[in-house]
Amino acid sequence: MPDRSPAATLPSAPPAAPSGSAQLPQWVLTVVCEDRPGIVHALSGAIVAADGNILESQQFSSPDTGRFFLRQQIEIGADAELLREKLAPIAQRFAMELQLEEAGRPRRVLVLASTAEHCVRDLLFHQRAGQLPVEIPLVMANHDTLRELVEFHRVPFESHPVKGAEQKAEFEARVLEAIEEHDIELVILARYMQILSPELCEALSGRCINIHHSFLPGFKGANPYRQAHERGVKLIGATAHFVTSDLDEGPIIEQNVTRVDHAHSVAQLREIGQDQEALTLRRAVTWAAQSRVLLDGTRTVVFR
Amino acid sequence: MPDRSPAATLPSAPPAAPSGSAQLPQWVLTVVCEDRPGIVHALSGAIVAADGNILESQQFSSPDTGRFFLRQQIEIGADAELLREKLAPIAQRFAMELQLEEAGRPRRVLVLASTAEHCVRDLLFHQRAGQLPVEIPLVMANHDTLRELVEFHRVPFESHPVKGAEQKAEFEARVLEAIEEHDIELVILARYMQILSPELCEALSGRCINIHHSFLPGFKGANPYRQAHERGVKLIGATAHFVTSDLDEGPIIEQNVTRVDHAHSVAQLREIGQDQEALTLRRAVTWAAQSRVLLDGTRTVVFR
Amino acid sequence: MPDRSPAATLPSAPPAAPSGSAQLPQWVLTVVCEDRPGIVHALSGAIVAADGNILESQQFSSPDTGRFFLRQQIEIGADAELLREKLAPIAQRFAMELQLEEAGRPRRVLVLASTAEHCVRDLLFHQRAGQLPVEIPLVMANHDTLRELVEFHRVPFESHPVKGAEQKAEFEARVLEAIEEHDIELVILARYMQILSPELCEALSGRCINIHHSFLPGFKGANPYRQAHERGVKLIGATAHFVTSDLDEGPIIEQNVTRVDHAHSVAQLREIGQDQEALTLRRAVTWAAQSRVLLDGTRTVVFR
Amino acid sequence: MPDRSPAATLPSAPPAAPSGSAQLPQWVLTVVCEDRPGIVHALSGAIVAADGNILESQQFSSPDTGRFFLRQQIEIGADAELLREKLAPIAQRFAMELQLEEAGRPRRVLVLASTAEHCVRDLLFHQRAGQLPVEIPLVMANHDTLRELVEFHRVPFESHPVKGAEQKAEFEARVLEAIEEHDIELVILARYMQILSPELCEALSGRCINIHHSFLPGFKGANPYRQAHERGVKLIGATAHFVTSDLDEGPIIEQNVTRVDHAHSVAQLREIGQDQEALTLRRAVTWAAQSRVLLDGTRTVVFR
Repeated sequence: MPDRSPAATLPSAPPAAPSGSAQLPQWVLTVVCEDRPGIVHALSGAIVAADGNILESQQFSSPDTGRFFLRQQIEIGADAELLREKLAPIAQRFAMELQLEEAGRPRRVLVLASTAEHCVRDLLFHQRAGQLPVEIPLVMANHDTLRELVEFHRVPFESHPVKGAEQKAEFEARVLEAIEEHDIELVILARYMQILSPELCEALSGRCINIHHSFLPGFKGANPYRQAHERGVKLIGATAHFVTSDLDEGPIIEQNVTRVDHAHSVAQLREIGQDQEALTLRRAVTWAAQSRVLLDGTRTVVFR
Repeated sequence: MPDRSPAATLPSAPPAAPSGSAQLPQWVLTVVCEDRPGIVHALSGAIVAADGNILESQQFSSPDTGRFFLRQQIEIGADAELLREKLAPIAQRFAMELQLEEAGRPRRVLVLASTAEHCVRDLLFHQRAGQLPVEIPLVMANHDTLRELVEFHRVPFESHPVKGAEQKAEFEARVLEAIEEHDIELVILARYMQILSPELCEALSGRCINIHHSFLPGFKGANPYRQAHERGVKLIGATAHFVTSDLDEGPIIEQNVTRVDHAHSVAQLREIGQDQEALTLRRAVTWAAQSRVLLDGTRTVVFR
Repeated sequence: MPDRSPAATLPSAPPAAPSGSAQLPQWVLTVVCEDRPGIVHALSGAIVAADGNILESQQFSSPDTGRFFLRQQIEIGADAELLREKLAPIAQRFAMELQLEEAGRPRRVLVLASTAEHCVRDLLFHQRAGQLPVEIPLVMANHDTLRELVEFHRVPFESHPVKGAEQKAEFEARVLEAIEEHDIELVILARYMQILSPELCEALSGRCINIHHSFLPGFKGANPYRQAHERGVKLIGATAHFVTSDLDEGPIIEQNVTRVDHAHSVAQLREIGQDQEALTLRRAVTWAAQSRVLLDGTRTVVFR
Repeated sequence: MPDRSPAATLPSAPPAAPSGSAQLPQWVLTVVCEDRPGIVHALSGAIVAADGNILESQQFSSPDTGRFFLRQQIEIGADAELLREKLAPIAQRFAMELQLEEAGRPRRVLVLASTAEHCVRDLLFHQRAGQLPVEIPLVMANHDTLRELVEFHRVPFESHPVKGAEQKAEFEARVLEAIEEHDIELVILARYMQILSPELCEALSGRCINIHHSFLPGFKGANPYRQAHERGVKLIGATAHFVTSDLDEGPIIEQNVTRVDHAHSVAQLREIGQDQEALTLRRAVTWAAQSRVLLDGTRTVVFR
């Protein structure tokens, strides 16, 4: 069992204010399974039997994959173990991926970075301000550039050079070790500019989020901000997505854009794009940490 | 039974594209009742029993009033009558206000107007473009100004002067008569600048929507756009709400604002405000016509 | 001289409400030239000499092309001819492209369409509502589908089949003829799905606007909405641009996006995308008709 | 002359990236005077004479007050003193309030706070991230609550109790002293919940910014978030304004709103409102620090 005592980690974000009455403990139930009749009926029966009350409920039936997705926030009078007992046979009957989490519990995340500071800074700030429901026991980078920033926020920082195949393998081995050591639930690529090995991508499937800039239209090749400037685009933005073996693809979690105009220089476009990246990554991480993001093949279901 | 034959009315908007597979007929179920355990379990049992499948589901438990609100979009293999039969005892047991409507059925609305055209024009345009799920069998006004506009859209138009108590009483009697005659489900005050009598407000409770401008901060008295200009506000907007006896109060359905700046004249502020009014009213009417707006005391629950 | 008598055309939009005092006639001055010191000083001298007052002024110096762009809204006490006289030697000295237009004068546009109605409908509606500063003496299409819609708005409509090279050449010849005949200032491709010949593109350079859908990331090939759905994009939008020989490239005038989510079907994405196309095209046309869009190589300068 | 050596203050934000070529030093010229012909002509003559080039120019003629407002960003080949010399007689001739500032120079601000941390935290974070063009030599408060937060960011913090007239007078005297001592250019009331004395308001006229929550409609009295919740508002926001003797009035600089719905509790509305306050205050301070905010009687001219 991981040690989640407060002493071992940063002060965590407070639980999100519940929308219902706040007296009873609240839990978040997520369910993914093949869509067929009777799912909601069966689940709601278990909740009634455990003296629970559904405060929020969102569901989606995917016409593409035939799968059913549900997220409910539940208030329970009885012990949560009773609810788990009641849910277990239903999960088995419908072959569900079912999770029951304490509402507001901060998830443990590992941040990977390189030299760009905008995303790391934004995550650290909002974590400390209680606006990002995560704990950050470690930031790892392939350069030492961000040490002062990270340590200023009293978060441990490690840098290891990643030049050549050998150092890359060592870095990735250290990542897996740190995940084990700190009981990491989510890995965030906060402008970590290295391509992960297929093995690491596979190992982190569904629990690693990347961020990159986005344009209308898209631009291939080096210096996309220069290309966007030359084309005179009016919107620039960012996309946060789960990592697959193709670094800039993978199921999209969140996208944002902002308006620019002819007067913005390439440098200004880049700065604005970085703001969008930080914002978009933060939103994706927040939703993932609140069990709002579920995978549906190449797509995500996001219950905002 | 009202006559809803196509010949009697304008061409109606097409049903909204469903998010699930489109083969089976779809229904919208709305439920309001006192919140207690077992509601969702009971309802979902009835839907399973009627060979139905829940495509979308939204619910809310109001901590203020202790009431429970639910909207579900359901696909039914069997006849809808079977579902009604299964739901009836549940509705009785939980003392529910329960409605089951064909998804996408255009609601019949009566539009009341005065001389300002922006809201009426916007409603007529979007209705005709298939973007507003309503039928408009009649527009009534206290001036003849909008006759050409309304008749251009091939909608019947009536104007009656409303000067003094007697004419006002006659106009309101005619409104009630038209509601009966055209089987009206929703009354829209599209900048109808008269104060309704308490009796009419009461008669239309929960099915009459009004629109007015809104500012930060609010301005009392005549010519609010001039006041807003003098104060140099940076946002102006509009509020759509259900009508109560206080014309500009009542449960809010939708609000929007847009950005203005120092260079806007009073006339321009008014024009921009009118655009916001038209947009805001249209959204409120759309949601009401899709059974997305439920009353919770002085507030609304809007399942967008 | 073209005949701009009211009888020959639709009722035109009213001039935009000026931001200054409304008593004196207002003019819009646009200037493009090589950037060098003294331009503003020279122009403002001419305006003073013609008893003019600058109400609004926007300028931009392009670091990429070294060109200078200016748009001013001017109130003139004297005759406009005097101002033209004073400006002429300055235009010559600085090798300016200089235009002086009556503020608010509706531009004459030719709309080319195919079978999709969303953009045409939006342009006709807003033109008639006085919200689009253009006159539309003719809509031409390669199908007859939109006849009823266009004629409902009392605008002349022509359709000519465009199958094979010969009919295409005939259609384009007719376009050029109509431009001459109706004194057209701007051509709008309102989802006209044919590729224009390089000759026509050349002939319409800088005065022909096209609209197409836009995604983050971009999608190549057929049925982009299906691709966007499969990828699970969270934003879809549209781009309006000047036509060059590459149909979907050319200097961008305006872009917009809107938020979508996992629950939107391909059909719904398409519908939402069409709304964005209509909105984006309308904004681009409005700004072009107000002399707010100037060309800077592969980019536009848009003085909003 | 104030000491602006780096040692005395926090690291300052970098100058904003210029939109033009970055080689020459850039200056921001602001002018306010009675509107009459020839102003632009005279100013542009001086700039030409000083070997300057106008990179950006925004102007506004207020029809309400008859005053003229201008902001220009200028690149100067010669010494800035030459430009000052050339401008001086023009300023005198037109009775201008004229300022010429180095572009991007961080302004020195004094922050006054109470116990709420959201605005102070946001200002400190963005200042340190180089995203707020100010220096903060001191935060003063009437409680000690924020000491840890402020000192974490390595900014000096002073708290003084303000209970009763005597302590209030002492606090205000210390404010004036600190303004002198630290050469303060702008005072920010970052949720400083005390009413300033008329004398202090007067002394800080045009250089003190306050922030408060805003609703549609406005709510008077205690606990406005509870009132907003009861009324079921759909938008909540914030207003930043210059301080006058009426604490929550004064010329508005910036307003923002965000969307809320029926599911938000009073506590959540408050949290969302606080985010809006922080954002809105930050934008107002940024613009003021960039000489983008000019006073026009009861209104502001904001050249964004």
